[in-house]
Amino acid sequence: MLTRIGFIGLGIMGRPMARNLLQAGFEVMVHSRTRSRMEDLVAAGARPGESPREVAAASEVVITMVPDTPDVQSVMLGPAGVIEGAHDRLIAIDMSTISPSVTQQIAAALAERGIRALDAPVSGGETGAIAGTLTIMVGGAAEVFTECQPVLAAMGRRVTYIGPSGHGQIAKMCNQVVGVLTLEAVAEGLVLAAKAGVDVPRVIEALSAGSADSWNLRHQGPRMLARDFKAGFFVHLQQKDLRLVMELANGLQVPLPGTALVQQLLGSVEAAGGRALGVQALVQALERLASTTVGGR
Amino acid sequence: MLTRIGFIGLGIMGRPMARNLLQAGFEVMVHSRTRSRMEDLVAAGARPGESPREVAAASEVVITMVPDTPDVQSVMLGPAGVIEGAHDRLIAIDMSTISPSVTQQIAAALAERGIRALDAPVSGGETGAIAGTLTIMVGGAAEVFTECQPVLAAMGRRVTYIGPSGHGQIAKMCNQVVGVLTLEAVAEGLVLAAKAGVDVPRVIEALSAGSADSWNLRHQGPRMLARDFKAGFFVHLQQKDLRLVMELANGLQVPLPGTALVQQLLGSVEAAGGRALGVQALVQALERLASTTVGGR
Amino acid sequence: MLTRIGFIGLGIMGRPMARNLLQAGFEVMVHSRTRSRMEDLVAAGARPGESPREVAAASEVVITMVPDTPDVQSVMLGPAGVIEGAHDRLIAIDMSTISPSVTQQIAAALAERGIRALDAPVSGGETGAIAGTLTIMVGGAAEVFTECQPVLAAMGRRVTYIGPSGHGQIAKMCNQVVGVLTLEAVAEGLVLAAKAGVDVPRVIEALSAGSADSWNLRHQGPRMLARDFKAGFFVHLQQKDLRLVMELANGLQVPLPGTALVQQLLGSVEAAGGRALGVQALVQALERLASTTVGGR
Amino acid sequence: MLTRIGFIGLGIMGRPMARNLLQAGFEVMVHSRTRSRMEDLVAAGARPGESPREVAAASEVVITMVPDTPDVQSVMLGPAGVIEGAHDRLIAIDMSTISPSVTQQIAAALAERGIRALDAPVSGGETGAIAGTLTIMVGGAAEVFTECQPVLAAMGRRVTYIGPSGHGQIAKMCNQVVGVLTLEAVAEGLVLAAKAGVDVPRVIEALSAGSADSWNLRHQGPRMLARDFKAGFFVHLQQKDLRLVMELANGLQVPLPGTALVQQLLGSVEAAGGRALGVQALVQALERLASTTVGGR
Repeated sequence: MLTRIGFIGLGIMGRPMARNLLQAGFEVMVHSRTRSRMEDLVAAGARPGESPREVAAASEVVITMVPDTPDVQSVMLGPAGVIEGAHDRLIAIDMSTISPSVTQQIAAALAERGIRALDAPVSGGETGAIAGTLTIMVGGAAEVFTECQPVLAAMGRRVTYIGPSGHGQIAKMCNQVVGVLTLEAVAEGLVLAAKAGVDVPRVIEALSAGSADSWNLRHQGPRMLARDFKAGFFVHLQQKDLRLVMELANGLQVPLPGTALVQQLLGSVEAAGGRALGVQALVQALERLASTTVGGR
Repeated sequence: MLTRIGFIGLGIMGRPMARNLLQAGFEVMVHSRTRSRMEDLVAAGARPGESPREVAAASEVVITMVPDTPDVQSVMLGPAGVIEGAHDRLIAIDMSTISPSVTQQIAAALAERGIRALDAPVSGGETGAIAGTLTIMVGGAAEVFTECQPVLAAMGRRVTYIGPSGHGQIAKMCNQVVGVLTLEAVAEGLVLAAKAGVDVPRVIEALSAGSADSWNLRHQGPRMLARDFKAGFFVHLQQKDLRLVMELANGLQVPLPGTALVQQLLGSVEAAGGRALGVQALVQALERLASTTVGGR
Repeated sequence: MLTRIGFIGLGIMGRPMARNLLQAGFEVMVHSRTRSRMEDLVAAGARPGESPREVAAASEVVITMVPDTPDVQSVMLGPAGVIEGAHDRLIAIDMSTISPSVTQQIAAALAERGIRALDAPVSGGETGAIAGTLTIMVGGAAEVFTECQPVLAAMGRRVTYIGPSGHGQIAKMCNQVVGVLTLEAVAEGLVLAAKAGVDVPRVIEALSAGSADSWNLRHQGPRMLARDFKAGFFVHLQQKDLRLVMELANGLQVPLPGTALVQQLLGSVEAAGGRALGVQALVQALERLASTTVGGR
Repeated sequence: MLTRIGFIGLGIMGRPMARNLLQAGFEVMVHSRTRSRMEDLVAAGARPGESPREVAAASEVVITMVPDTPDVQSVMLGPAGVIEGAHDRLIAIDMSTISPSVTQQIAAALAERGIRALDAPVSGGETGAIAGTLTIMVGGAAEVFTECQPVLAAMGRRVTYIGPSGHGQIAKMCNQVVGVLTLEAVAEGLVLAAKAGVDVPRVIEALSAGSADSWNLRHQGPRMLARDFKAGFFVHLQQKDLRLVMELANGLQVPLPGTALVQQLLGSVEAAGGRALGVQALVQALERLASTTVGGR
């Protein structure tokens, strides 16, 4: 039974995830380059770690939740990295969203030092992180996944084992493709409804009862209407993920014409100064093309 | 309380809808240009009508469920049409999917003869028509809607009043935009998953637990995987609807770049001989671009 | 040798075309529903005709240059139409841009009355019409084309026989596809150049020397830069033509994803009030997406 | 007057370019990692260089023509690189197509050692390299450009000074955007023409006389028709360039929806095994969507 968990990366997602581990009864050691971010977790019972190495040395499972591919490389394999704290029982779980192929390279490097690794990226945003209801997609050895399930269950509601190393990240890439195009679906439908002059909330209600239903329709549709562009998930992080998606798809020679289009439309949101808005701001690109506005006062 | 219902148009959708009215206890008179289509409904208790005029004259509510805009024009306003059976209490409900602007013209023409009209297009396909679980989007006068609710409730589970005449059809257009782009979302995600070599059913399972979830992901994703291209909703009817969508959007000057793309990709399915497949065959266009196949034996 | 020419439709294109026929020495009878449009041509030596029928009866060749498909149907086959002025030697040349399939139907109807027909749509805009340098794409019987060549040569510089009835119109549809996507090419390239801060006129100069060269780059690129959106060819006429293109492509099951995209972007120009601008205003849709402006003072 | 030229990178493009310098009377020292590639140039009068450093030390102008960004970095700044052969009069001209921002970094690094640099990417392919008719777009200091003009003129017909360091590369990115979308224009037009059954060579002839004309229409159109997919410019190099384009556009927040679409369609050509075909194979993606073939036997 795993009890000692290390958590590295205490941003918007990482902090509530670490807190949920604490509340589930795990012994947690945290680490962040930004010292102040550790304070309230330490106040809540976590121990502070000086470096990824120290966290790894003191833990059975070390979890990383950092922004991008180079950050994971550095935390795992860099100076004073997790790899330097290697010991027999250590499992490293990267929950960041990063390149599937680099994920496999990192896992291989860790394996040489006896560290078993999982990739376990999440979906669900800050809300899901706080509520402990994240969707978690896991790649790595099946038996390592089984061993870690209680740990992951403390942070997410639906934890799915996908396959060997990197497959969690690939599932996450697919999640981003499906999610962003479904969001485009909602945005195009609502702009049409609005400019046609129909009652948009009733359209959302009617559509969500049938085959056009989606999480995005029910959750992002009303936000678009209410001009609520506060970020659950930032435009610029979505774009980072779409760059990873396109790199993967390009390497596999999988044309994704719809996803490529949405990537450009989100670029329009960035061009208009909306990098730090939530992804539902995608509707603004279509509003700009249509010289109209969905909802609003 | 409305009891005598006329039903005109006994195709794949119309027959089970008329049957559900019979089973709900309404007195039903049916009419179809193809006489043989009336037989089993007559055997089940419906009366046969010689013409739309006769059906209208004998009914309080006359429902039309026919393929396209000119069919509704002809049944409603043509020789021996509904308009010729006009009487004081008559309500005409068109449940076909047709042009919103022509819908308004027909309603105006019917109004001149004292016939009140609703447009009430449906979503849910043959399955929904049989099960009586259609989504119904209604346009017309609110008090006429209220009066007809028991009738509509016999055919659909979620019946939503959208607004004045034509607004039911506009909501249906929005439904087609959102539905078809959500389907594209699923198709692109699954082709990427398949070519990346991950376990696709697990990807569907994981994604349907989070923000990428949709009716299409849960229902059409598995069909794409199982190579089940049997039509719930035909490609060629989807294309007919998308032409109506584009005509509406064009008139309103609403650019729909994603919908326009999917329309072209569905055109590729038609070009390959797939007109009579279900819309989930959209995935075949992406498979063709990627030189791959999702699922299969 | 054909000498008596009738000309029906005296708009922006038709008037200079009729004038060029006069100047080439043909006897010309003109007709327009708007009487005042005939005045200066009559002053220049043309005879006025009361109706298409009268024009046809008095001519060896009757040319139509009207806005859209129904206009050609009406002028050719309607009351007091060309068909009523049928005689042994009559040739009808439609130079409007209309539906290829309706063109074939009209030609068949005319043939029943012994009238030989050509479709001869043009490219080159008002400038080309005035200068007599239009590009003319001709469909119909080869021997009729040969007989009419001196007439067409009075209006255009490059006159190409494409094939049987309707093939001139199909070539024109292809012309619109290639032209509008080439325009998109220029617009995307210049927006990128402008936002990157390079010297755009030099970029145009450099690119026009190599494999990226096009008529649009050399002619429309500088107009985009100079913010000269005066219409050589109206956005709304381009959109009319693209609807014909899409109707043709849809019937033939030819997916045109790029053309469909440009159609939506031009819709954005219309939405912003630019229907009466020239097609080079396409760049404004991309500028709107990029929150930037190419050129300007 | 510059007379001693070093040339590094003797691939399909580099060899004929170096040969043209020799034929123009320059003293040329060549270098390639693949020794055998130097042989015929040495036989023709060039001197062999052991390393970029040696070439730089012996030359007034050192030219690089290598595949990608890291290659230029390594040749210029790596061990035994150009920078190690720095001397007072040295000018470094990179004629490869690489990242504009890395170009500026390299130029800055070279400047610290007193080396003046130009970026001078080319358009025109192997044919243009052999014929000495390349289009050359130049970035860097204007006076360095002026000094190098006789050298560049030996390799290209149209040499355009664009602006400061990196601007040659940016112009090249714009060239790729315009070129590839113009190619898409031709591909869509020809697939429509072919499936409509018109005489495609006549359509090309007619269109090239008017506003739809382009280099691609006249040169790549006939190749598409003749099924001549031999590479003037490889699909995989075009894709490399489009990745640079998208990286630039993404950084500048310039949405390029058309270019993004073509990138995906070229991905389809790669997926079908066409990496080493010429870019005109783009038409194959559209043929696949339309289940048809342009031209052929």
